[in-house]
Amino acid sequence: MKVRTENIHISSEGKTDIIDITHRASTLLEQSELSNGTVTFFASGSTAGITTIEYEPGLIQDIPLAFEKIAPMGQHYYHNATWGDGNGYSHVRAALLGASLVVPFKDGRMLLGTWQQIVVIDFDNRARQRDIVMQIMGE
Amino acid sequence: MKVRTENIHISSEGKTDIIDITHRASTLLEQSELSNGTVTFFASGSTAGITTIEYEPGLIQDIPLAFEKIAPMGQHYYHNATWGDGNGYSHVRAALLGASLVVPFKDGRMLLGTWQQIVVIDFDNRARQRDIVMQIMGE
Amino acid sequence: MKVRTENIHISSEGKTDIIDITHRASTLLEQSELSNGTVTFFASGSTAGITTIEYEPGLIQDIPLAFEKIAPMGQHYYHNATWGDGNGYSHVRAALLGASLVVPFKDGRMLLGTWQQIVVIDFDNRARQRDIVMQIMGE
Repeated sequence: MKVRTENIHISSEGKTDIIDITHRASTLLEQSELSNGTVTFFASGSTAGITTIEYEPGLIQDIPLAFEKIAPMGQHYYHNATWGDGNGYSHVRAALLGASLVVPFKDGRMLLGTWQQIVVIDFDNRARQRDIVMQIMGE
Repeated sequence: MKVRTENIHISSEGKTDIIDITHRASTLLEQSELSNGTVTFFASGSTAGITTIEYEPGLIQDIPLAFEKIAPMGQHYYHNATWGDGNGYSHVRAALLGASLVVPFKDGRMLLGTWQQIVVIDFDNRARQRDIVMQIMGE
Repeated sequence: MKVRTENIHISSEGKTDIIDITHRASTLLEQSELSNGTVTFFASGSTAGITTIEYEPGLIQDIPLAFEKIAPMGQHYYHNATWGDGNGYSHVRAALLGASLVVPFKDGRMLLGTWQQIVVIDFDNRARQRDIVMQIMGE
């Protein structure tokens, strides 16, 4: 059993930008030469989250609209009073979505559905450079 | 340390159908003969998610109502314009809930609460046959 | 590769009380003397969840308000008809947030962001004593 800890660098526009990291994750998994185990994706930061979606142009519009309903950008947030950085909504959205995703792999391949991609959603209110942790554990 | 990758087959009605897989998961864990580690549950697909609930008839009604509020079935979704399959709301709900759940086990038993069951929520807008990945990693 | 299963005891006020467990988790990880792997946090129970946030006084107010919008306390829940314990909203909130969080660690340190804390959110409608499972797997 081995552990490989990698980073996937993303450049995001923020504002609920949705970034597909599936291809880079698959390449890193191949390079690890491990066959069976889990991949843990983790967003180190409190304004981004990770999930899976069918990455297509319609949902790229629908998902931000759903988050706008849950935690609207223009609403009052106590967080903004603390820091004055105006991204209270970003923190609330990220807390709800969650920072970790675990994907099992078998025979060197992540067990994703055909139309299922791994995405980072960057909720911050500005463009960001981020490193997403990808940790592969297996044999 | 060993890895066992299993499937749990479910027949769902879709439309936020909630299916309890705890019993089958416990049986597969027993058969693995592993004592300590984690079980990763993963929905391979972008219209279902996994979580834990107290599986009782009241919540089986309450949880779909909560999702109906978050991402209503009858609303406009850009996803539907892309594919015309009318399940935009299913994708949005699944992305929010998340495709993975990790449950630790000790002495051969998952560390669930007494009133806590592992459930798959199938958000698709039609009946589906699905395989849920259950991967056991431990010693 | 080793597995260590620990408990983190919390005393909560319930009612979407948010409790920072980062410090105790870091101490337990140090004591494990493991260097690389994953930590799985799991809430054994169906009225609490786990996520990460920037733990600061503003968000401690904002996050309960967001959950109040998603699953209001005063609304009708079928769960309450089943048990009469009045915590239907707690169950719905916990199901949405999720019971598990997985945090990778490297060189003996969890790969959290600088302003990112691990929190338990206790949604129950009364004060509770709880044990959160912290399972460390690594080498």
